[in-house]
Amino acid sequence: MNKGFNSFGVIGGDKRQLYCARALSDDGYMVSLGGFDSVKEMRNIEVTTPFEAALMSEIIILPLPSLGSDGKIPAPFSKGNIELTPDLLTAMKGKRVFCGFADKLRKAVPAPGAEIFDYYEREEFAVANAVVTAEGAISLAMINFEGTINGSKCLVLGYGRIGKALTDMLTSLGARLTVSARKPQDLAWIRSKGATAVKFSKLYELESFDIIFNTVPAPVLDSLLLAKLASKALVIDLASGKGGVDFYSAERMGIDTIHALSLPGKCAPKTAGEIVKNTIYHILEEEYR
Amino acid sequence: MNKGFNSFGVIGGDKRQLYCARALSDDGYMVSLGGFDSVKEMRNIEVTTPFEAALMSEIIILPLPSLGSDGKIPAPFSKGNIELTPDLLTAMKGKRVFCGFADKLRKAVPAPGAEIFDYYEREEFAVANAVVTAEGAISLAMINFEGTINGSKCLVLGYGRIGKALTDMLTSLGARLTVSARKPQDLAWIRSKGATAVKFSKLYELESFDIIFNTVPAPVLDSLLLAKLASKALVIDLASGKGGVDFYSAERMGIDTIHALSLPGKCAPKTAGEIVKNTIYHILEEEYR
Amino acid sequence: MNKGFNSFGVIGGDKRQLYCARALSDDGYMVSLGGFDSVKEMRNIEVTTPFEAALMSEIIILPLPSLGSDGKIPAPFSKGNIELTPDLLTAMKGKRVFCGFADKLRKAVPAPGAEIFDYYEREEFAVANAVVTAEGAISLAMINFEGTINGSKCLVLGYGRIGKALTDMLTSLGARLTVSARKPQDLAWIRSKGATAVKFSKLYELESFDIIFNTVPAPVLDSLLLAKLASKALVIDLASGKGGVDFYSAERMGIDTIHALSLPGKCAPKTAGEIVKNTIYHILEEEYR
Amino acid sequence: MNKGFNSFGVIGGDKRQLYCARALSDDGYMVSLGGFDSVKEMRNIEVTTPFEAALMSEIIILPLPSLGSDGKIPAPFSKGNIELTPDLLTAMKGKRVFCGFADKLRKAVPAPGAEIFDYYEREEFAVANAVVTAEGAISLAMINFEGTINGSKCLVLGYGRIGKALTDMLTSLGARLTVSARKPQDLAWIRSKGATAVKFSKLYELESFDIIFNTVPAPVLDSLLLAKLASKALVIDLASGKGGVDFYSAERMGIDTIHALSLPGKCAPKTAGEIVKNTIYHILEEEYR
Repeated sequence: MNKGFNSFGVIGGDKRQLYCARALSDDGYMVSLGGFDSVKEMRNIEVTTPFEAALMSEIIILPLPSLGSDGKIPAPFSKGNIELTPDLLTAMKGKRVFCGFADKLRKAVPAPGAEIFDYYEREEFAVANAVVTAEGAISLAMINFEGTINGSKCLVLGYGRIGKALTDMLTSLGARLTVSARKPQDLAWIRSKGATAVKFSKLYELESFDIIFNTVPAPVLDSLLLAKLASKALVIDLASGKGGVDFYSAERMGIDTIHALSLPGKCAPKTAGEIVKNTIYHILEEEYR
Repeated sequence: MNKGFNSFGVIGGDKRQLYCARALSDDGYMVSLGGFDSVKEMRNIEVTTPFEAALMSEIIILPLPSLGSDGKIPAPFSKGNIELTPDLLTAMKGKRVFCGFADKLRKAVPAPGAEIFDYYEREEFAVANAVVTAEGAISLAMINFEGTINGSKCLVLGYGRIGKALTDMLTSLGARLTVSARKPQDLAWIRSKGATAVKFSKLYELESFDIIFNTVPAPVLDSLLLAKLASKALVIDLASGKGGVDFYSAERMGIDTIHALSLPGKCAPKTAGEIVKNTIYHILEEEYR
Repeated sequence: MNKGFNSFGVIGGDKRQLYCARALSDDGYMVSLGGFDSVKEMRNIEVTTPFEAALMSEIIILPLPSLGSDGKIPAPFSKGNIELTPDLLTAMKGKRVFCGFADKLRKAVPAPGAEIFDYYEREEFAVANAVVTAEGAISLAMINFEGTINGSKCLVLGYGRIGKALTDMLTSLGARLTVSARKPQDLAWIRSKGATAVKFSKLYELESFDIIFNTVPAPVLDSLLLAKLASKALVIDLASGKGGVDFYSAERMGIDTIHALSLPGKCAPKTAGEIVKNTIYHILEEEYR
Repeated sequence: MNKGFNSFGVIGGDKRQLYCARALSDDGYMVSLGGFDSVKEMRNIEVTTPFEAALMSEIIILPLPSLGSDGKIPAPFSKGNIELTPDLLTAMKGKRVFCGFADKLRKAVPAPGAEIFDYYEREEFAVANAVVTAEGAISLAMINFEGTINGSKCLVLGYGRIGKALTDMLTSLGARLTVSARKPQDLAWIRSKGATAVKFSKLYELESFDIIFNTVPAPVLDSLLLAKLASKALVIDLASGKGGVDFYSAERMGIDTIHALSLPGKCAPKTAGEIVKNTIYHILEEEYR
């Protein structure tokens, strides 16, 4: 990848950032780590303060999201989150800063004097994380469902990125799979995978499932559909925000539900950190082509 | 599907249209077939003239394309193609006419007095046919390559609909697969399938393959890349128009090439005809929702 | 299945037996449950004492294993294990008794006056449980490995039933898979799946992996191979008895190991219980053919 | 592989033998080709007479079968088959001779003075060829069935090596697959693949299929089952000898049948030749371990 850059400062964030730092170092770059007080040392990596990590590096990597609701860089491995002090901002001057949700950062620091890039808004980042999310969802199903995926009746709601990845994994594990989507072309893809394709409007015609994965961020599984499809099911909701399940009704009906958010960081921080690294590499490559 | 329609007239076209008629009849509709002089009879189907088929039917299905370069409806199963006579146009009045490349028809008959629908421009039609095309391409490879797909080094150029379908089928048949694409998100999907993902700009770094499938309608495989990747390969070009292979250079180099066009109608007319039928059903359903 | 039998007594055992009882009842049979003091009631199932459950039933199902080292039927859901009292033996007279490890039972009750069948020694039982074990092993890997299976370097040692099931699941999840076996025909199967096949004798030539699954009940992963293949790996040992891993050396080297035994009952008791039921059905069918 | 051998003589046979010679030469060995009069030259390979090819080589490879019904080595690429002349036998003295159906050779030449090995009786040879046969059968289905495998209703009779390979390939191509077997453990494997498993004795309960693959060398598809399952199907019989289909009844019923024998040599001679080579390598490795 090398385009004349040699040094990366990884500042704040969770295990993903640690694995991102690890992967950068394994690729031969100089890496400084800031905002990880509880990490004492890491092979070939300079564990230091956010200020020094920024000062020593040409490229700075902030976590996803770059700023929390307190306006600070999240730092769960330190006693407190990291403030954007004038010193830290000075150390970032003239450098390339990569982060998730760049808008928050840009709003907080209107004239940062640094070039800010957002890895989170790259579609490749979303695709790679969808695969991680799908695998995380499947591991949740394996742990919480008392049978196997193999042979079980599964339903996936939505055929976006996560729905696509789930469809491939579940069919290949031998689930009896139904996938629900809206667009006719998605239904055609689903059928081609050997799964049963069902329009959302026809969901009420189906019978009960063993495991239901929702990926649609809209109230899809209301109390009526829950009663029809989920009376004996484990329901895993992967939709962001409020999710797509009427959790109140589900609880009343005794249906097991899991609202699983941010699976990549939780289930597979190593892969998630490598995805951050790869996305940053690709952005740099495109910059310097 | 039934929305009050009961009768379909299938007029002109090749085996696909015959299978479309068959599938409609098996669903319980009244079907008339026009423009198939060499077909003497078909179970439960009225084999007749184009005019009568149009007259007897509420819905009329024309082939893909609807009109040939001679301005007539292609009818390879008859002595000649079908003219749009005033009689035939009168018989079509007030009816629903489904065809591929509706623009040609609209241009030829500016005021047809019929509602014209184009099944070819529906994305679901393209998706379903991409799966058929991919399977047809694989059968061509099986016939023309002297080894098996299983264990062979395959390259797919392009990750559109056909490239996606090919990727899934080839990996699952045990090919050692490399797929080339342009967009970073496509490369991420390709990697998630267990295939090797390569940017187009890095193709020249690869070594020779056993089978190469091109899906890109642009001059991708020029003489340089042919020499590098294809010296011992079978090259199957699925791109429409002139294709994406420098066929002249390939011939000079002794490379086997196949420019495979219109595979669905040739390799799997039954499935291709059922896709026409299903797409028409979906259009009608949306109309009458 | 019905061959004139109507009543099953499920006596002792863990969750598997509960799910077996559930599945029998859902098929329409009369089911009595004995030895589950902590279970208060179950829909359509008579929860009672082992003696009554035996008395009321034509067919009696004991757990796997049928007898513990204390000579009693294991009953983890009761205060104590179940003694083979003269009363209980009398109630079992003239009936069909299905159990795992029938030899133990036959030894303890030389003349039981009942026909004893062993579902555990049926190969179909082993096959179905191998699939469950493989899925359980994959869930352990998903939970304990900080990356995803997708894209990770995995090694499976052994190509028996569990190795076969693991190979299919791991390749289809997108792992970069190597499988080691002894027999040339197994190596041929492995290659046909798109995985890398390696003889045991050539393992020392490989480099380090992310996840290693051992299925061979012999000391395969000694300290030398651990150092070579597993320095950064998660090692999951599925081999019964002492397993196939030098756990002492692994601990000294800081390698994460899991010796995972009896996965079906732990990970997927519902499927495991249904497998018991299906195997019993098949034995009965063969008896009465 | 090298164990001190440097020279191979490939004598008689079809395209498989040619590809075997090609693969040996590409591995760096000296290769002489005998009994291929219509082949004028091959890069790096000595094209000569059977006698000279035998004389110049340490290892001699005869085709499958080694001897035809005329007692000669089959040589379809020459004007006549190759006689085992005293000269040829003398040239083979003290050498290693690999062939298929060694018994025929041993019977014809009771004291050959050569060590005779049979690659055909190795199970790895059978496994690798089963995969080639399965792929060949699928290509036959793709060519002769007017629809796609994807989405079609397929039936595989028998779950031996070819049945196993077919099951994996057909499910992954998106067929709706039923597999029939006798042993309960095979039925358990079939279910785990996501296919429908059916005992042979229950076949008469099924409805009609699109494509039926028979692998059982016994009269399985009699006129009754043909009428029940195959009235609209393409039937591909892969069983050796007389096959397993009542071809007479099938023809009377207008059912399309293909009795496909020796597919590896016909469909994929390159892979089939490489399998011969690999099997010989493995035999030599075991000899000199």
